[in-house]
Amino acid sequence: MFRNYKVRTDLALEARERFDEKDIKIRGVFVRENYNEEKEIRTTVVRIETENGAKTMGKPQGTYITIEAPNMSVPDEEYHKEISEEIAHHILELLPSKKTESVLVVGLGNHQVTPDALGPKVVDNLHITRHVIREYGRDLLEDDTSIMVSAIVPGVMAQTGMETLEIVQGIIQETKPDVVIAVDALAARSTKRLNRTIQITNAGINPGSGVGNHREGLNEETLGIRVIGIGIPTVVDAATIVHDAMEHLLDALEEQEQREFLDEMIAPNLNQMFVTPKDVDETIKRLSFTISEGLNLAFRQV
Amino acid sequence: MFRNYKVRTDLALEARERFDEKDIKIRGVFVRENYNEEKEIRTTVVRIETENGAKTMGKPQGTYITIEAPNMSVPDEEYHKEISEEIAHHILELLPSKKTESVLVVGLGNHQVTPDALGPKVVDNLHITRHVIREYGRDLLEDDTSIMVSAIVPGVMAQTGMETLEIVQGIIQETKPDVVIAVDALAARSTKRLNRTIQITNAGINPGSGVGNHREGLNEETLGIRVIGIGIPTVVDAATIVHDAMEHLLDALEEQEQREFLDEMIAPNLNQMFVTPKDVDETIKRLSFTISEGLNLAFRQV
Amino acid sequence: MFRNYKVRTDLALEARERFDEKDIKIRGVFVRENYNEEKEIRTTVVRIETENGAKTMGKPQGTYITIEAPNMSVPDEEYHKEISEEIAHHILELLPSKKTESVLVVGLGNHQVTPDALGPKVVDNLHITRHVIREYGRDLLEDDTSIMVSAIVPGVMAQTGMETLEIVQGIIQETKPDVVIAVDALAARSTKRLNRTIQITNAGINPGSGVGNHREGLNEETLGIRVIGIGIPTVVDAATIVHDAMEHLLDALEEQEQREFLDEMIAPNLNQMFVTPKDVDETIKRLSFTISEGLNLAFRQV
Amino acid sequence: MFRNYKVRTDLALEARERFDEKDIKIRGVFVRENYNEEKEIRTTVVRIETENGAKTMGKPQGTYITIEAPNMSVPDEEYHKEISEEIAHHILELLPSKKTESVLVVGLGNHQVTPDALGPKVVDNLHITRHVIREYGRDLLEDDTSIMVSAIVPGVMAQTGMETLEIVQGIIQETKPDVVIAVDALAARSTKRLNRTIQITNAGINPGSGVGNHREGLNEETLGIRVIGIGIPTVVDAATIVHDAMEHLLDALEEQEQREFLDEMIAPNLNQMFVTPKDVDETIKRLSFTISEGLNLAFRQV
Repeated sequence: MFRNYKVRTDLALEARERFDEKDIKIRGVFVRENYNEEKEIRTTVVRIETENGAKTMGKPQGTYITIEAPNMSVPDEEYHKEISEEIAHHILELLPSKKTESVLVVGLGNHQVTPDALGPKVVDNLHITRHVIREYGRDLLEDDTSIMVSAIVPGVMAQTGMETLEIVQGIIQETKPDVVIAVDALAARSTKRLNRTIQITNAGINPGSGVGNHREGLNEETLGIRVIGIGIPTVVDAATIVHDAMEHLLDALEEQEQREFLDEMIAPNLNQMFVTPKDVDETIKRLSFTISEGLNLAFRQV
Repeated sequence: MFRNYKVRTDLALEARERFDEKDIKIRGVFVRENYNEEKEIRTTVVRIETENGAKTMGKPQGTYITIEAPNMSVPDEEYHKEISEEIAHHILELLPSKKTESVLVVGLGNHQVTPDALGPKVVDNLHITRHVIREYGRDLLEDDTSIMVSAIVPGVMAQTGMETLEIVQGIIQETKPDVVIAVDALAARSTKRLNRTIQITNAGINPGSGVGNHREGLNEETLGIRVIGIGIPTVVDAATIVHDAMEHLLDALEEQEQREFLDEMIAPNLNQMFVTPKDVDETIKRLSFTISEGLNLAFRQV
Repeated sequence: MFRNYKVRTDLALEARERFDEKDIKIRGVFVRENYNEEKEIRTTVVRIETENGAKTMGKPQGTYITIEAPNMSVPDEEYHKEISEEIAHHILELLPSKKTESVLVVGLGNHQVTPDALGPKVVDNLHITRHVIREYGRDLLEDDTSIMVSAIVPGVMAQTGMETLEIVQGIIQETKPDVVIAVDALAARSTKRLNRTIQITNAGINPGSGVGNHREGLNEETLGIRVIGIGIPTVVDAATIVHDAMEHLLDALEEQEQREFLDEMIAPNLNQMFVTPKDVDETIKRLSFTISEGLNLAFRQV
Repeated sequence: MFRNYKVRTDLALEARERFDEKDIKIRGVFVRENYNEEKEIRTTVVRIETENGAKTMGKPQGTYITIEAPNMSVPDEEYHKEISEEIAHHILELLPSKKTESVLVVGLGNHQVTPDALGPKVVDNLHITRHVIREYGRDLLEDDTSIMVSAIVPGVMAQTGMETLEIVQGIIQETKPDVVIAVDALAARSTKRLNRTIQITNAGINPGSGVGNHREGLNEETLGIRVIGIGIPTVVDAATIVHDAMEHLLDALEEQEQREFLDEMIAPNLNQMFVTPKDVDETIKRLSFTISEGLNLAFRQV
């Protein structure tokens, strides 16, 4: 119905749901759902396997794992260890099959904009080992970690004047990690998903995704190595809120009226605006712990 | 039309405009507008003079000065000195007529939520003098400031467990300032006004206003001394965006449908959500300089 | 020997040690030491019981518990839960004997100076309950906490223009807590104690103590209620480093030479300078977790 | 006298002074001093022209310009514009003779350790243009800036696991700037110089310099392009304080006693400790403005 305005979501799960509403099957896209009652965690795997499926979904080919846990944004003394363990499990599955010896974690986003600070905050709590291993070897490390972990917070283009891709490409050329794990705050379509959903994918981070709208993707094609993307939706585009609110209302109007109305409403004012909850500071702080602990766990098990 | 949902704005200017649309005059409310072409600053004074006017407007009696400057959020080497001077001018007018000897600046809001950090950031750049004057007298100060300036960033209730009013009342009792200046990030109705409008008022800060929703007001009635409120709208309530988008659309529906629709749409999901621009970090940083320099200027002239 | 220059330490333990060196017994001061081999925690209780003892020690009467744990500043996945439990244990012992129903935690220090940010960071991770209990009663809280916890980060005098004492007195008058717990970064005499020692005392926080040098004490006498002080030494005064380095060297000089030398050396340049380790950021972050978890634990058990 | 312990200073000026004390002339090292009475700025140019001079001085060949301004750390409404202009002047002189079209500013240091945060804070206030010029050309920029300015805050090795050199090399390879300007907090020998001295040099940033002790240099040799280093001393090594305090005292002792004493005193405890003033937060904030405005000025004039 809205041919011009494209509702934006970084979640493959939400991209898929739009077709469910209309009872459409999509070729080349497979979905498998699993619910862990005890832990109250729903895991959905969306696999986009063909070029055609990618086109229909508006997302690159790859595996998209979505972890939904309604209680995730609720305070918990251990920062939701059960979710950290789930993250670690999926990260380990997505790592290249041969032994991974070094990983570069990229904390995307702007550390000065609260809902966009997820990536930088995850990096803050990582257990960094590359410099220690290079200096003293693996024997010195207290735990069993033998993977070389390095990390960078590249900043956003307005702060650096550079594409994130340029910065990460340069660092990869110099330091030669086996795999990149890019962490980013995402945009969802529904406010109900904010801060309650984690997406892990081997498709990397895509152009136009994230709170800050990356212009070029970080993925195997652009970086030459496996790129695992981890994201949590922390905002909804303001235009999406209005769009969704009006969707069935508009049925009552003539098509001509609809067009004019949308052009007028959605376009200029709401551009570059986002919707986010008021308690976003506490939530981001806690979620970043859950993810960094998930990564720390995974790295100890490689 | 929307009897149940109340569109929220902290700007008296916007509260007044709603009646303009409907060509209604309000008794007890006087408006005077002035445009400085050279500086491109529009100043509107809304004066609510009667209990009745206050009721109609949904704002306490008092003088509300609104400075609109479209370029305010655009970078400027001197942080818009012309606006700082305008602020200083109005602050001086609103100070109690007898000599003001001491002022307590209260930086309201949450320094960890970017659009709510305006108040704390303004306090960061103030020229604090109370402790120096009390220790060494007024002669030592380099410039002509003779006013005792103190400041507090009380934090928000989720961080302190206390009402801001309790904290400020206690501090006033101990330190006995002549006047309080409370700086806060506000909610506007229109995204066009975000970060481009400053409201200065002798009505203080009202319950339910601000990004973080204060439950009790800071004003002459609650604090016992003159309270000047300074605010910049940095967010719009997410529900307001949807409400305004739908306002004329809804004319096409039956009244019963409207009610159901609104209950469903606006109530639960968008509650406690706000809309804010993506470049909010840079903007808040710059605006806080403009205001603190306005205050510093005013304090040198008292 | 150094009659004019007073070596500064905020630790009662170190104040006591100076006499040990000289094999002096102090009347009115009792010391009891305990070592937990399994946890590698040494606990020393210094009890200053008479006015005379206080004079000799240069510290107010009261009980000073010092927890020494060499590994405390070393990273640990659980942020040294064994130390948090030790802290909780001693806090509970120092609380007033009749039921404590409300506590105000005061995070002293400057959150913008890394080694002075301990207090503000501890407050960041506290479980604040006062506003919830006042609104909904005690039943709603998930855990068994029934104590009303509030907290304030008052800032330092250069930021506020006010004595911390004024701010805290005012807040106590309004909110009437049963007890204050004040958390502060301390100065030690020896760099070996930095970030490895926690002092808990019912003597509150004393004038001239802390990284930022409070001018007036927070204690039962000034605030009218029990004040528990918790501190970790994060700096050594620069002058103390030089003083201690020279102490036995100076024996070789004539007394006259000593005086001149010290006046010249220690006085002006090193004034207002402090010594702190380079990895102070990571350390402060971790230690603040250890303490706030200790407090959270204690509050659940009151 | 202290053959084993090497007093550390990052200032060429201080390295030179040690020889002045002993009335020694150094071959290959030229010094020119200039004092601007009106602005109260002393500028000293130390030019190390031979390999021999470099060896004696313990600093690489190059031009080291030192700006000393006692009032620099004192608050000033315009953030010491006269010093920003002096910085701009020297930056322009040190740029490669042929037209410089692009510059990468590197903000070295740890933004979470106050005295080490100078570099990151300078980057915060730079006018970044590279992305705008690449997207829209030079015509769109408001002022006359035509130079492409990009910037990176690489973080410190404990946070990234990577050498700063690796990160910067990678970024240079991808973005090909004509020149690098690296900003860093330095260590001085004398506390009197802290926050009052700016060093600008075409020798880049050297191994072992800076608050955080870089292990590999950023200079023309390692990066392949001109590297201008800008630094302000914000700390003194704790061992240096003790060393200098004792220097003439030690004359009274036998040589054997000296050795033992020094081994005992200076080595282990004071290692990795630094001395810094208590008001370091305000000072760093102001100095970073002075430098970034100096750079912004220079970039407009290229």
